[in-house]
Amino acid sequence: MNDAKDMRQSHLFTKTQKFAPKDEVSKNAQLLIRTGFVHKEMAGVYAFLPLGWRVMNKIMDIIREEMNALGAQEIQMTALQRKELWETTGRWDDAKVDVWFKTALKNGTPLGLGFTHEEAITAMVKPFVTSHRSLPFSAYQFQTKFRNETRAKSGIMRSREFIMKDLYSFSRDVIEHKAFYEKAQAAYERIFQRVGIGAQTYKTFASGGTFSKYSHEYQTVCDAGEDIIYVDEKRRIAINEEVYTDDVIADLGLVKEELVQKKAAEVGNIFSLGTKFSDALGLIFRDDDGENKSVVMGSYGIGPARLMGVVVELLSDERGLIWPQSIAPYQAHLINIGHNDEAEEFYILLRTAGIDVLWDDRKNVRPGEKFADADLIGCPWRVVLSDKTHEYGGVELTHRRTGEQTIVSIHGAITMIHQ
Amino acid sequence: MNDAKDMRQSHLFTKTQKFAPKDEVSKNAQLLIRTGFVHKEMAGVYAFLPLGWRVMNKIMDIIREEMNALGAQEIQMTALQRKELWETTGRWDDAKVDVWFKTALKNGTPLGLGFTHEEAITAMVKPFVTSHRSLPFSAYQFQTKFRNETRAKSGIMRSREFIMKDLYSFSRDVIEHKAFYEKAQAAYERIFQRVGIGAQTYKTFASGGTFSKYSHEYQTVCDAGEDIIYVDEKRRIAINEEVYTDDVIADLGLVKEELVQKKAAEVGNIFSLGTKFSDALGLIFRDDDGENKSVVMGSYGIGPARLMGVVVELLSDERGLIWPQSIAPYQAHLINIGHNDEAEEFYILLRTAGIDVLWDDRKNVRPGEKFADADLIGCPWRVVLSDKTHEYGGVELTHRRTGEQTIVSIHGAITMIHQ
Repeated sequence: MNDAKDMRQSHLFTKTQKFAPKDEVSKNAQLLIRTGFVHKEMAGVYAFLPLGWRVMNKIMDIIREEMNALGAQEIQMTALQRKELWETTGRWDDAKVDVWFKTALKNGTPLGLGFTHEEAITAMVKPFVTSHRSLPFSAYQFQTKFRNETRAKSGIMRSREFIMKDLYSFSRDVIEHKAFYEKAQAAYERIFQRVGIGAQTYKTFASGGTFSKYSHEYQTVCDAGEDIIYVDEKRRIAINEEVYTDDVIADLGLVKEELVQKKAAEVGNIFSLGTKFSDALGLIFRDDDGENKSVVMGSYGIGPARLMGVVVELLSDERGLIWPQSIAPYQAHLINIGHNDEAEEFYILLRTAGIDVLWDDRKNVRPGEKFADADLIGCPWRVVLSDKTHEYGGVELTHRRTGEQTIVSIHGAITMIHQ
Repeated sequence: MNDAKDMRQSHLFTKTQKFAPKDEVSKNAQLLIRTGFVHKEMAGVYAFLPLGWRVMNKIMDIIREEMNALGAQEIQMTALQRKELWETTGRWDDAKVDVWFKTALKNGTPLGLGFTHEEAITAMVKPFVTSHRSLPFSAYQFQTKFRNETRAKSGIMRSREFIMKDLYSFSRDVIEHKAFYEKAQAAYERIFQRVGIGAQTYKTFASGGTFSKYSHEYQTVCDAGEDIIYVDEKRRIAINEEVYTDDVIADLGLVKEELVQKKAAEVGNIFSLGTKFSDALGLIFRDDDGENKSVVMGSYGIGPARLMGVVVELLSDERGLIWPQSIAPYQAHLINIGHNDEAEEFYILLRTAGIDVLWDDRKNVRPGEKFADADLIGCPWRVVLSDKTHEYGGVELTHRRTGEQTIVSIHGAITMIHQ
């Protein structure tokens, strides 16, 4: 991400609050609002404040790296959508899709706000797909989706306006599609590992469509989740309640007695779309055998804010947030009690060493309050400079998650933070 | 920006087209669609394809650097807006603001799609502003705005859905505000320089509001512009037609006879908002004299896509696009006629040297077509490897804008591209 030049806490415009907001039922929203990471614009609609937006960007950068490694090309489609396009697949109808937000041009032409983009991308790539040489390819975006959810009680895990990373693949046949689908699965698994929820996340079999027996979801075991899954811990896969039948259990070669029911949150999903959209919208190519064929498509979604919400639900404790180092707003939170010049020197040393640092340089704030704030904000490492540590010629380094504490030189701290 | 791992043109899913689309009147949209940089979703609504999205990201990264250098903190607000919030300033009413897109929750609650964010940010920062120690600060975002324009004929220069960088400043008094306002002006001028339109861009005096005599626009002289300005070339300032009166000319110390009328496109604007929004929404602080005072605000907008459109309008020629190196999708376009292994070696050498390269590795495409494509796409440097250049032990390096050509070693080419 493009790092801010500087972050002294005296400059940060947000502040932590003493109490959680009363109108929030979800733990993630309560904590993220209390700590000044997000702002509630209205039920189910959240803005990201500086600390929260940093976390979002770190998550998006991890996803982007994995998408680029797949060879997928980044694009940016539009929220405004034409009725005619969505009528081709029957998805304009509010009776079929009940999450549309609709609006209109001044002349009355109805428009929708995209809740997904299969129709839009299929139509968009059509002029570029002619022969078998145009394929395969894949494209993705981080784009704002709108979903008119009836209830919105899961904080940033399910909101009415949210950034989604949606990836779409275009292949010549099912074999080529499957090869990409496998690679996309591996990329998704790396993403969940990298953001710190790999151990709790299971590839889950869910209902398929016309073109595939199952779709695959990634479900993270989490009390705040809205789904029920049945986990085979040994094989690290699960079955979504919606397809949890004896037939499916047998089909997957699982044993009912070994499956454990758990609450889980869907953190990603991948679909084999077959030729559903390419047939509807005429996305065909001339194959090298001279025949016209429909393109075989896949779609692959992840919501970065949902990942962020799940991390909060899973990893925070009674003292506040706890961020994995990979997505923390800052890796280190520097606090000094006196010794201002030395603190500034340490701040510069840490940043020069490539460490993102939030420096609590505020005057008129008691040490106890600073420590409580550091716990609330949840950077992985707290670095304290005080009379005591100064005497030892170093800093007190505390790991937020484990609570382990040690007094080391600033250079020792840099080494430990980088490990 | 986060660079893609690799860009061989055989992998790029877009293609250039022989002819410009018939339904576009604007030069920028014609060229950008023909070259596969953007896709027209509907009138006034454009998606960005891989090459176009790279240009947008390079422009946004330049703006972000300049915003961070101002100490502004990046956030992300929401498109969905509550009626009640905008009623506090009277701007909910369609009779007052005629560009709203409106929608509704399922229970009928009306919502708007933000066309700007003064109300939203004023309400959002309120809990964080208590004493004079909370101030000053500034925050910005790259966020999608929606404007229900009656006509949309300027391509990506004026669209119904567009990313805007909007910066807001919060100061304790007018003096503090003015100091920031001056710094923001300097940042804006650097941005226009860096994206390659500095020479044609003028700080322009436009109508102010209750709290300031003038607002300031940055206007780029350009036939496709929708504004008329009167330029004082020597002092490099201009007056917008809307305030072009003898009084204003005299007030600015200008001489009517020296002013030249020009068509121009507004590429940025900066406003002193005074306490208009903080009064309406109760954004007050307790000053160190113990008194409650309203926060003094400013707002500062730039549309990255409009910048991109203006660059296309100003710099392209009859053969296609011409990008300044700072915002080109790729700095170099490598074309080989035979010598595939050597081309791959050069491709790696160029990338290793930190140069963004598009490599036209397509088989079955004639050299003439590749050259025409390179001209259309408009990367600043074309690097050709052929029998002829191979004989000289190098490549033919052509500068897209000047047409200057030279045969140099690949290392010589790297040096020249970096210059």
